[in-house]
Formats: sequence, C-alpha cells, structure tokens
Amino acid sequence: MGYAFLDPSGDPARVIACGLVAPLPGGTAAERLLVIATALDALIAEHAPGALAIERLYFNKNAKTAMAVAEARGVALLCAARAGLHVAEYTPQEVKQSVTGNGSADKKAVQRMLRILLSLEEPLRQDNVADAVAIALTHAQRSKFESAIALAR
Amino acid sequence: MGYAFLDPSGDPARVIACGLVAPLPGGTAAERLLVIATALDALIAEHAPGALAIERLYFNKNAKTAMAVAEARGVALLCAARAGLHVAEYTPQEVKQSVTGNGSADKKAVQRMLRILLSLEEPLRQDNVADAVAIALTHAQRSKFESAIALAR
Repeated sequence: MGYAFLDPSGDPARVIACGLVAPLPGGTAAERLLVIATALDALIAEHAPGALAIERLYFNKNAKTAMAVAEARGVALLCAARAGLHVAEYTPQEVKQSVTGNGSADKKAVQRMLRILLSLEEPLRQDNVADAVAIALTHAQRSKFESAIALAR
Repeated sequence: MGYAFLDPSGDPARVIACGLVAPLPGGTAAERLLVIATALDALIAEHAPGALAIERLYFNKNAKTAMAVAEARGVALLCAARAGLHVAEYTPQEVKQSVTGNGSADKKAVQRMLRILLSLEEPLRQDNVADAVAIALTHAQRSKFESAIALAR
C-alpha cells in the first residue's frame, strides 16, 4: 500500500513523506493488517494530518485481490476514525483529471505532472507511491488548507 | 455483524454471549468501522477468547455489500491480531456440515440443530447471530479446548 503525506500550505505543495507499507509476504491476513494498522497509526501520529484521502474502490475481475484490498481499506478507515481525521474518497478518474486535466491519462502522464507540479527532483518510480501522491494532491487542490495522508492500494 | 462467544469446555458447549454489533445507519464507513472495532475490542477484553472464528468470504453479486463486509472483516482480523488470537476461517458449507451433518442445510435446519446441540431455551431468531453461534460451534468441534469469539456478516 502506497502512502503520501502532503503539506498544501506552500506553493508548490510539499511532499513531507511518502513510501510503501509492505507487509512481508507469507503472513496471514490478520498479520498483514496488523502491519498496515501499526504503520498507519505511527505515520498519522508523526505527521498529524487533517484528513485521510483514499482511492474509491471498485471491484475488478480478481475477487481475491479485491477482498484483500477492501480489508486493508477497512483498517485504514478505522485508523483515520480513531485519529479523528476527515475522510475523503476520490475515483481514479477524479485523480487523473485533477493532476493532469485528463480523466483518462495514463500512469506515466500522471507521474510526469506530479514531478512538475510538486517540483520533485526525482520522478516517483513506484506506481503505488505515485498514486498516493496524486491522491494527496487531488485532495489538496480541493481542500486547500487541509494537510492529508493519502493511500493507494 | 453477528457475534457469539462460546465456551467449549462443557457438554454441551455453552454460549457465553451473543448478539449483534449494529452501527447506526447513516454514518460514514469510517464511523461504522470504528463502532465495530470498539465493540469487538470490548468483547475480546471481556471474554478473553483463544481464537476468532470467522466466515470465509466469497464475493457475491452485490459488490457494494461485499466491499462493506470485507472492510468490516479487515477490522475484525485486526482486532484479533492485536489481541493475539488465533484466527480460523470456515466456509458456510463447512459450518452447515459441522452443525447439521449436511453441507447444504438451510438456515432453519441450522437453527434447529443449534438449539438441540447447545440446549438453548429459546431459538436464535436473528440470522446473523445464529450464523455466528454456528461458526463458533464449528470451531469448538474442531479445536475442542479453544474458546472462540465467532463473527458472521
């Protein structure tokens, strides 16, 4: 699961932290969810965001993957509720539209625009992390003064 | 979400507590998950089970319901992991087979057998609660000495 924490108060908005919460393969679902919750609780405590921005989930063809993603999403929403964060959801199309002006942009186009909009020295090479940064930026553009932690599957 | 806590040490096994965790309608997903987690944490703290037994989830036609159930399941697995509980999963067929001897028994047949097997004075009238008791009993039959909290959507 990719995450990004964005401070929207400057121009450009600034990525404070981003990365992956990646439970080790081979654990049980419960162990994996515990790793995710522990990491999210720590990130929220460290960065004290005002909101959690998260991808609106649609079910795809792979029901097993979709279920694991929905379980992780439930845990993320719980972490947000316990920290009293506002929760915002965006569809992939809204995120692409917001970042590139084109709701059907491809991942490379999103990543190029993120580098420009956020004045990043390096491109974001991991898809999940770039997605999380894009979701955080979408939230920043719509709720200008609210810092957010964003998550992408 | 129905829950049941079963003490398997006697004969018959004894239902210590059962009921519904039912968040009020109209809240957000995050609020709903917070109600579920808070209730489960309290139930686990009160009854100190050795395991969480839960229905193995299959995706059905209603993707929106399935997602809400999977999110709640993720929260339940997290509560179990935080409390150090063993997690066991059973398919609906395994539960019906275990309780009635027939993997395709209907709900009424399961409820009748639960009343007999557990010497209940009253039948379990709520489907979710009866399902949770049936899952707990399935777990008790397979792990004779392990008390369990069981959950059903």
